[in-house]
Amino acid sequence: MATSSLAPPEVPMELHTGNRDRLITALRAHLSATASPPRGLALLQGGEEQTRHCTDHLELFRQESYFAYLFGVREPGFYGAIDIASGQSILFAPRLPPDYAVWMGEIKPLSHFKDRYKVDLVFYVDEIVQVLQDRFSEHGKPLLFLLYGKSADSGNYSKPASFEGIEKFETDLGTLHPILTECRVIKSEMELALIQYANDVSSEAHIEVMRQAKPGMKEYQLESIFLHHSYRHGACRHCSYTCICATGENSSILHYGHTAAPNDRTLNDGDMALMDMGAEYNFYGSDITCSYPINGKFNSNQTIVYNAVLKAHNAVISHMQPGVKWIDMHKLAEQTILESLKKEKIIHGDIADMMARRLGAVFMPHGLGHLLGIDTHDPGGYPEGLERPNEPGLSSLRTIRELKEGMVITVEPGCYFIDALLRPARDDPISSKFFNWEEIEKYKSFGGVRIESDLYVTGQGCKNLTNCPREIWEIEAVMAGAPWPPHAAATKAENGLPKA
Amino acid sequence: MATSSLAPPEVPMELHTGNRDRLITALRAHLSATASPPRGLALLQGGEEQTRHCTDHLELFRQESYFAYLFGVREPGFYGAIDIASGQSILFAPRLPPDYAVWMGEIKPLSHFKDRYKVDLVFYVDEIVQVLQDRFSEHGKPLLFLLYGKSADSGNYSKPASFEGIEKFETDLGTLHPILTECRVIKSEMELALIQYANDVSSEAHIEVMRQAKPGMKEYQLESIFLHHSYRHGACRHCSYTCICATGENSSILHYGHTAAPNDRTLNDGDMALMDMGAEYNFYGSDITCSYPINGKFNSNQTIVYNAVLKAHNAVISHMQPGVKWIDMHKLAEQTILESLKKEKIIHGDIADMMARRLGAVFMPHGLGHLLGIDTHDPGGYPEGLERPNEPGLSSLRTIRELKEGMVITVEPGCYFIDALLRPARDDPISSKFFNWEEIEKYKSFGGVRIESDLYVTGQGCKNLTNCPREIWEIEAVMAGAPWPPHAAATKAENGLPKA
Ligand SMILES: [Mn+2]
Ligand SMILES: [Mn+2]
Repeated sequence: MATSSLAPPEVPMELHTGNRDRLITALRAHLSATASPPRGLALLQGGEEQTRHCTDHLELFRQESYFAYLFGVREPGFYGAIDIASGQSILFAPRLPPDYAVWMGEIKPLSHFKDRYKVDLVFYVDEIVQVLQDRFSEHGKPLLFLLYGKSADSGNYSKPASFEGIEKFETDLGTLHPILTECRVIKSEMELALIQYANDVSSEAHIEVMRQAKPGMKEYQLESIFLHHSYRHGACRHCSYTCICATGENSSILHYGHTAAPNDRTLNDGDMALMDMGAEYNFYGSDITCSYPINGKFNSNQTIVYNAVLKAHNAVISHMQPGVKWIDMHKLAEQTILESLKKEKIIHGDIADMMARRLGAVFMPHGLGHLLGIDTHDPGGYPEGLERPNEPGLSSLRTIRELKEGMVITVEPGCYFIDALLRPARDDPISSKFFNWEEIEKYKSFGGVRIESDLYVTGQGCKNLTNCPREIWEIEAVMAGAPWPPHAAATKAENGLPKA
Repeated sequence: MATSSLAPPEVPMELHTGNRDRLITALRAHLSATASPPRGLALLQGGEEQTRHCTDHLELFRQESYFAYLFGVREPGFYGAIDIASGQSILFAPRLPPDYAVWMGEIKPLSHFKDRYKVDLVFYVDEIVQVLQDRFSEHGKPLLFLLYGKSADSGNYSKPASFEGIEKFETDLGTLHPILTECRVIKSEMELALIQYANDVSSEAHIEVMRQAKPGMKEYQLESIFLHHSYRHGACRHCSYTCICATGENSSILHYGHTAAPNDRTLNDGDMALMDMGAEYNFYGSDITCSYPINGKFNSNQTIVYNAVLKAHNAVISHMQPGVKWIDMHKLAEQTILESLKKEKIIHGDIADMMARRLGAVFMPHGLGHLLGIDTHDPGGYPEGLERPNEPGLSSLRTIRELKEGMVITVEPGCYFIDALLRPARDDPISSKFFNWEEIEKYKSFGGVRIESDLYVTGQGCKNLTNCPREIWEIEAVMAGAPWPPHAAATKAENGLPKA
């Protein structure tokens, strides 16, 4: 039976007040720098509950991320505004029909939301035009800064707030998105605490999975154990993303686990497992990958690939600090992996030459890591002026920024044996020469290894928020029943009186 | 540690072939009856994967229900067609980009889908115009029957298939929806087997929750236990609906458990729990409610309300058979509950008078039950010509049809003490006289009780697909650790040799 040391923390609404303060400061600085009047309101529309197709099946609602960042509101149907001059925050709550009380729960008075979300004013959504006109027109038609901008990850545009009567206001679509996105890049201490907690939950749940995994089980049973541990003990109802529970050859499918590849394989003795799973707590997420053999003992091929990736993971972490360029960290990871593969004679030739030909991307086609926060792929990876590279591997990078203190970023090097990438490498007469195809043949159905931790960039270096066994001996010990973290057991032993 | 007797069954694709055959038969009959040519194709568009707002966060995809019914396709992005004259079935699969193989998994050849889904032909979505024109134009422009109609539950309209070039075809929006909906109302044996399995999983998971529930736990921990048991042991990744884990006063909130009322209360000694949770297996669902005291022992008030509801539940089931009108079953449940409440002096006066004044709806504001299948609220409750009643309680009925052999319908009477309904009843001088307000005061924070089973209408009566302890003594025994189902233990004892 699983035990747990987790205690779901209270979430201070000052976290979101602080987020709003950072936006106000940034907006004022921007308006001042562009010699614009320090006026107007940032206006955002929260998410709406969705039904499935034409039915009345309600999907479990999760707040839109920018709105969650600023207001922390968990309920659907809200709008929120922040007055730049005064700093006042205003929520607009949906006016619920009387029978909501019977079907959905108590209809809370506006004062409830004012207290709960620590905003200055609360009105109903249907009062939005009047409130904005009555209270914020001293300098003429109020100017509304709406959220409109492109996600560098999805290519989709955020939908600016809309409501009946919006044409009565001046609106600005270009200012808010980049500024608010940049606010989200640097995490406050309170945000960090939640990301740390999500990491604590996920680390513990990963260990629970690791301990229960056995040949004969199904991948989805491992998913279920993770979800249950995170929810039951960690109070995490949502995950940051659909669990990737990939075993055997599936572990080379980077985003395995979705409906068309639904974690339904049977675990075999001798398989590697690649478990990429992260819980979310009060909107803030985690993103952790553990790789290990299902039978609890690394064989020699598994040891080779695993240690190649672990070395890259550790090398990156030891180099991370403010000012370091993420693209250089990516290349460091690639190079470290290539060097290990060369040592094992899986590849041969000049590493610098291979790097120049971007052959690292054959083994690691994804980026080294991404900003993490309210979204798994948190926005801000490519602020205006920073272009996504075109070259193989580098083009997958979700950011190429310089690290800054306060960023949270994942470090997730991987090494995979992917037919769809090895085939063209073999067909190309120049690149083909770098590979020892006979040796690679031995890894044909190996799949891949990924090791992913969540890192907080500090003033001098970085702090690993993830706490999972990473060394092979640690993993084997934990899978055999040893306590984790090890010092917990040590502490207990120290504190216990010796038996007489 | 939970054990389980569950073994997730293989899903025969003949189930969906059979569903298509029923549609073809019904469409041919309709065309013949309206003296229309027996030609054209039913064309449906499957669901698309959705990202969350502007991000690249993919929601776990679940197929649109009408499409799932006909084709059983779990992957997003498909179209499907059925030729009425020949009976041929055609799937159109999305053409995936080459890098899908790296990120999402193997790009399956069209033959894979032909084999897996047992259809006659498979093409790519981008070939749809050409295929329909080339193969189905012998009688002129092919006529496409598209799915367009209103859900009686949500009031939303299904979105007819659309694709570039659709204007090259004649289209019919009115015919398909009512006919296909009616097909879904009567379940085949293979459909029934899946609904039975979903019931088996859910019944077992409910019992696991019941056994683990203890004062001091959180409601969401009960939800987590249900989800885990259903997924780990039952292979059910989806639930039919968001779990309602309502304890104490929350049990009078009919659709508790959503994001704004998220199963986050602490369980107290003395609380009733109302657990409305159902797993889904291969699209087919279940919908089960168990009500019981968290501390495992019914007190006298709990006994009174519980037994009132159980009597109604059992009375309805004993009356169900083809030809019985569902609205009469609803009234039977109301009347049975009112009689019990009168016996306990919670209300007084003439029951027929109360029924005429629709006072049963004060205690049971929802409908007695609904069709169940691929949707929790399966469509077909109000076919053309059947109008939803207006009166309190009756207006909540999701169907007022006559029962037919092959229907699966939930029986879910409830009795709640809901402020928002008791207040107006008290304020009304006529209705107020029927209530013993002093007695009702004792149930102020009671919440409510609901007992919900899934029933299959047979030729002579009905079959209960749900297998949960329902009698108070059974519940108390199971919560105290007695085996369930009881005969499982009995069987084991019978088979075991007596100890010498
Ligand atoms: Mn990641
Ligand atoms: Mn129901």
